Amino acid sequence: MKKSLVALALMGAFSAAYAQSSVTIYGTVDAGVTKKTDTTTAIGKRDNNKLGFKGVEDLGSGLKALFQLEIRYEPDTGTLESGTRPLFQGESRVGLQGDFGTVRLGRGLTALQASNTAFEPWSGLPTPAGFQTDLQVAGYTTAYGIKSGSDPLGPAGNSANRFSNALFYNSPVFSGFQLNATVGTKENNGNLAAIQGTSLNPLLPQYAIGANGSAVPYSLSGTFNNGPLAAMAAYERNAIETKLWSIAAAVTPMPGLKLMGSYQKQDQGHTKLTNPDTKAWILGANYTVGAGKFLLGYGQKTPDGVEKTKQASAGYEYSLSTRTYVYGELSQRKNSLVAGDSVKYYGLGIHHNF
Amino acid sequence: MKKSLVALALMGAFSAAYAQSSVTIYGTVDAGVTKKTDTTTAIGKRDNNKLGFKGVEDLGSGLKALFQLEIRYEPDTGTLESGTRPLFQGESRVGLQGDFGTVRLGRGLTALQASNTAFEPWSGLPTPAGFQTDLQVAGYTTAYGIKSGSDPLGPAGNSANRFSNALFYNSPVFSGFQLNATVGTKENNGNLAAIQGTSLNPLLPQYAIGANGSAVPYSLSGTFNNGPLAAMAAYERNAIETKLWSIAAAVTPMPGLKLMGSYQKQDQGHTKLTNPDTKAWILGANYTVGAGKFLLGYGQKTPDGVEKTKQASAGYEYSLSTRTYVYGELSQRKNSLVAGDSVKYYGLGIHHNF
Amino acid sequence: MKKSLVALALMGAFSAAYAQSSVTIYGTVDAGVTKKTDTTTAIGKRDNNKLGFKGVEDLGSGLKALFQLEIRYEPDTGTLESGTRPLFQGESRVGLQGDFGTVRLGRGLTALQASNTAFEPWSGLPTPAGFQTDLQVAGYTTAYGIKSGSDPLGPAGNSANRFSNALFYNSPVFSGFQLNATVGTKENNGNLAAIQGTSLNPLLPQYAIGANGSAVPYSLSGTFNNGPLAAMAAYERNAIETKLWSIAAAVTPMPGLKLMGSYQKQDQGHTKLTNPDTKAWILGANYTVGAGKFLLGYGQKTPDGVEKTKQASAGYEYSLSTRTYVYGELSQRKNSLVAGDSVKYYGLGIHHNF
Repeated sequence: MKKSLVALALMGAFSAAYAQSSVTIYGTVDAGVTKKTDTTTAIGKRDNNKLGFKGVEDLGSGLKALFQLEIRYEPDTGTLESGTRPLFQGESRVGLQGDFGTVRLGRGLTALQASNTAFEPWSGLPTPAGFQTDLQVAGYTTAYGIKSGSDPLGPAGNSANRFSNALFYNSPVFSGFQLNATVGTKENNGNLAAIQGTSLNPLLPQYAIGANGSAVPYSLSGTFNNGPLAAMAAYERNAIETKLWSIAAAVTPMPGLKLMGSYQKQDQGHTKLTNPDTKAWILGANYTVGAGKFLLGYGQKTPDGVEKTKQASAGYEYSLSTRTYVYGELSQRKNSLVAGDSVKYYGLGIHHNF
Repeated sequence: MKKSLVALALMGAFSAAYAQSSVTIYGTVDAGVTKKTDTTTAIGKRDNNKLGFKGVEDLGSGLKALFQLEIRYEPDTGTLESGTRPLFQGESRVGLQGDFGTVRLGRGLTALQASNTAFEPWSGLPTPAGFQTDLQVAGYTTAYGIKSGSDPLGPAGNSANRFSNALFYNSPVFSGFQLNATVGTKENNGNLAAIQGTSLNPLLPQYAIGANGSAVPYSLSGTFNNGPLAAMAAYERNAIETKLWSIAAAVTPMPGLKLMGSYQKQDQGHTKLTNPDTKAWILGANYTVGAGKFLLGYGQKTPDGVEKTKQASAGYEYSLSTRTYVYGELSQRKNSLVAGDSVKYYGLGIHHNF
Repeated sequence: MKKSLVALALMGAFSAAYAQSSVTIYGTVDAGVTKKTDTTTAIGKRDNNKLGFKGVEDLGSGLKALFQLEIRYEPDTGTLESGTRPLFQGESRVGLQGDFGTVRLGRGLTALQASNTAFEPWSGLPTPAGFQTDLQVAGYTTAYGIKSGSDPLGPAGNSANRFSNALFYNSPVFSGFQLNATVGTKENNGNLAAIQGTSLNPLLPQYAIGANGSAVPYSLSGTFNNGPLAAMAAYERNAIETKLWSIAAAVTPMPGLKLMGSYQKQDQGHTKLTNPDTKAWILGANYTVGAGKFLLGYGQKTPDGVEKTKQASAGYEYSLSTRTYVYGELSQRKNSLVAGDSVKYYGLGIHHNF
């Protein structure tokens, strides 16, 4: 490969036109030693591990063509993420960008799920110390045996924060404001099991194996960024009509310090007869000093008439370069009613971007 | 990645020898909104979606080493093509090229399947509006529950137009003429089910689960290209002795206009007792004007003693650049005897090569 | 892709800092015609087929960050290696390198398995003509229905010479000496079946489906390289407490000639009541003359109280360049007690690195 690039470089000196397009290979390898209450010491990860291919083509007059394909994998075993997820679990999208904003087709994070990570102290990292996969979506992922999340009609084990078969729109930024919208289809995306819970009660809508959704899923978010202030309001309804909304804000009172908070509510009234609502809030801080970065977070999740889940986490990242850092983190999660949901977690590892 | 290329580029200035070899990353991302009679609106594709790696090494004295590995995937879900196909569904081949022509080993399109796309108005695109996957191979893919196609011993869901375990030869071009030959092995390629139809009648040859083929599969094509004229004659016999032959021609009477036609016949006499023959013909036109390209096609498939299938399609491509175009197409297919085979299809999307 | 590289190259002229890091795409495509006693002629492989991505980032003051991700595939069918292995079967590791040596986390060859290939006449190639997968590890891979190897708790079909969930250390080289150590975890890596043999006798330790190991697996090797002499001593214990040790040496009496030998012993006493030990030895030679290289090897495997397995192999490689060669090889293996273990093997093909 090295050889080839050089060949092309030499060639390139004579063809400036070539400079108009690009393909970039990028990725993340993150691995560490992890320990969770009552489980054996393991080699695990803190971040999603990625190997991606993306490109931009300049079509002239401000128009661009974009694509991105992102493989996700587990570094400790070399398998695809969760062993069964799509090859391009990260995303597979193609589209156009211009004065009108960005329009893409394919599979990727929903508007809500793509916007809320900026208001979560772990920036949406999937580590147990982070808050995004559960508290920041008010248990949207799955709750009490009812498969939900953004992709309830996907195969078991599929990620819960993406739409497949969707159209993605991001507006231009107007004086700090941006609108983001994702609209999916009712297509069943290979779900192998009937949505649980619906079968528990004939009064509830039934989603048989392989059935399409009962509504067109969509996700909306509005974000605001202006100097030390940032804010978000977002709403999503998935194909089985579970609803989720979230509001969040962040402030940077002094250089290096970021304080953030969010509140979110999930409504499963369409597929759950009793206690369909779940509320959650998170407070967090990031403090950067020299090559070090401290992360702190605390949050609670409160399902109707069920005991609260409480989570407190602390982490530290030490940068060896702009692309590489080592980290340590610990987290405590408490919920006396959910078996195995009261755990301490420790992680120590290395994170490398390429 | 960007960083690395530059590093290499700087390095390269001192080593012209490097210019002899290359690895190229290439691909296609094609996604659109599709609608088929009696199915929900979907995000789908028109072309095969590819992410490929290929290279050429100059061995001196006109000899070259070649390899190509091509991933195929579904852009709407991020999975591998059809969810279950090989990682390198597109192809996985390595070989040598010289004055003798090109010899490759591995998996790829058969000589017939690689040659006939030039005579199909959709250039072999797998969209329902295209003709190659069914009419242009006279129903070879599968017919009346008898799994067939070029790879009948492959796993269910595997593509029907490739040989695995094969040797591929392409002759040099002699005044417009080229010969192409593909020879496979009898290896069972992981077929999980006995070939249907064979079990329907004990008089017919039996292909049990995992059984090898009864004959060495091979595929031959001869092509001719000379200015405004092109023609093809091809013959293929697969490992369960289904035979397929095809003749085709194309003419370019004026710049931008291409007219084409093909006739093909499938003989399933080895595995089917009654009405073993299927005939099909296609007429098509491509007309390029400015950045626009019009596609038109009509064809019929006539299985022995079974009602004809008729298909008419129209499409339009508008190029935003040499690598990117948007498209719209519609198609009507009629066969009153085959359930779900009388459908209208609409597609609207974007096609990007990188 | 070419286009992009050029774009970056042009850009690079203005940013020397970029030169500090790199991502390299590399791989191997190896395909040939193979014939084994009582099997149909097949298209197969001689070497592992690879598509890899690796990088090095200079962190300054002698410290480097490293990563490597290696896809393995079958060239004859385009599937992942063995059809079911991890996407990055080759390896998935990230780590740091400095004066202290190299430390990596993830999945890869164990210290023993990475060191012994230098003392095997086929350099560890997985071809049936090679010795590494069976004789050089004294039948460690699997023996008499007892799943073993470095990864006994991995899924069926997983490679037997790697640790998942491991920490890898390589010391610096001190006057020819290097120490290598791999330490895994007890994590069950997705094994779908109880370890056979353990269930045969209640007196033996039981490893139920999905059970963790009974010991922390580790692998150690010490190597010595000094001019014409090389030597190795290695020891490994896997998660079900099977033990393997090996000693090996090689000498280069004259330019182009390399003579090598190894002796190894496996102890399955922890999971096998009778005849738990297996011993094996191999003698081999490589002779390079001009563009040609001759390979010769002979070895025996002697399980306690069971008939010997004897293997003799001969091969020839002819280099078309530093990256490409064609090869032919034949091998005979004899063991009258193990069904199908007395076979003749022939292979003829091409090997291309990129």
